[in-house]
Amino acid sequence: MATPAKRTVEFFYDVISPYSWIAFEQICKYRGRWGIDLKFKPFLLGGVFKASGNDTPSTNSQKLKYIVLDMNRLAKFYKVPFQNPPNMMEMIMKGTLSAQRFIVAASMDLHDKATENISRQLWMRLWSKNQDATTPESLFEAARLAGVDENQAKKLLTRMKDSDVKDGLKQNTERALKNGAFGSPTILVHIDGKSHMFFGSDRFHIIAHIMGVKYEGPL
Amino acid sequence: MATPAKRTVEFFYDVISPYSWIAFEQICKYRGRWGIDLKFKPFLLGGVFKASGNDTPSTNSQKLKYIVLDMNRLAKFYKVPFQNPPNMMEMIMKGTLSAQRFIVAASMDLHDKATENISRQLWMRLWSKNQDATTPESLFEAARLAGVDENQAKKLLTRMKDSDVKDGLKQNTERALKNGAFGSPTILVHIDGKSHMFFGSDRFHIIAHIMGVKYEGPL
Repeated sequence: MATPAKRTVEFFYDVISPYSWIAFEQICKYRGRWGIDLKFKPFLLGGVFKASGNDTPSTNSQKLKYIVLDMNRLAKFYKVPFQNPPNMMEMIMKGTLSAQRFIVAASMDLHDKATENISRQLWMRLWSKNQDATTPESLFEAARLAGVDENQAKKLLTRMKDSDVKDGLKQNTERALKNGAFGSPTILVHIDGKSHMFFGSDRFHIIAHIMGVKYEGPL
Repeated sequence: MATPAKRTVEFFYDVISPYSWIAFEQICKYRGRWGIDLKFKPFLLGGVFKASGNDTPSTNSQKLKYIVLDMNRLAKFYKVPFQNPPNMMEMIMKGTLSAQRFIVAASMDLHDKATENISRQLWMRLWSKNQDATTPESLFEAARLAGVDENQAKKLLTRMKDSDVKDGLKQNTERALKNGAFGSPTILVHIDGKSHMFFGSDRFHIIAHIMGVKYEGPL
């Protein structure tokens, strides 16, 4: 019997991006079915925009209107509990540096499930519940709701200030940029010794095709 | 028996956009299967960019690299004979004003099949065969390969300079903009008295969902 091809996916994301949430939920659901080794790579979208000369599409009013429309339709289709934040621009301006450092700390110190759950809770705060995701209290609450115990959640708040965690976030951002990133999510698919870069939440049919597996739409 | 819902789709496009070609081939193939009244609406992407404050993504080098990668993968997946034009930026700079006026003339004077075939031949010239699509000779050849007879093809070359044709192009562009356009293709789906705007070539699963029909991927 032939050994199945080893499929590794590096998923680069920032919780400031609601499209990344859609993609994240899909890739998490397909992980087992597609037999992929999924690596969470929290990066800083602001850094990606700056280095690549790109900008958030929400600065264009016609695009922003469409994104709101599109996100609501996609969320319904993919069953992600997205809700328009009433103060979206203010929320975007506050940024996600602390949230992304917090996720990096989790990805370094805890297991993948904790990283996944904390990321989801942060998306929930920003893009579903209209809550802050910048203060230590907010991050702590996200970790608690993600099932992380109190002591570990407190430890993450300390760890996120350590230089190896800060460097980890920088390294993820640089790695994505080196592989062609200009936005979030950036998805690096490694198969048969080759790497394939994808942007966005709407290329799962192509990713499946390259992997030789079946994409069946939203699970 | 209930009367099936009337499904009308206005497809706004410019042959300068290769993603529009992918979407165009899909919507043409699904037209019969989905029972849609498909209306071709050639518009001017330059005008859409200017009025909406958007710009071609190819001005960003990191995005441009990705678009080339992405277009090649999509073309293979959707079986569209796209080939990277070696002189892409030069071709883009030449613009498609004459090509789009020529298609508008066809859409006014000829049947839908001629409009469809001429559009396809112009995409073939620009995005497959590395040929010009600006001179009268180029437009004439596109019409001939589209199955239009010589006299009618010559007449289109005269008609494209008439003010009603020029105005037709402007009106399509303005109608798209009024409905939220910022790029090509812009797809307006009308069903049950409601209009739904879509951008791009990657929302056919959502369009099908809204119409209550099945999207089966590339046909």
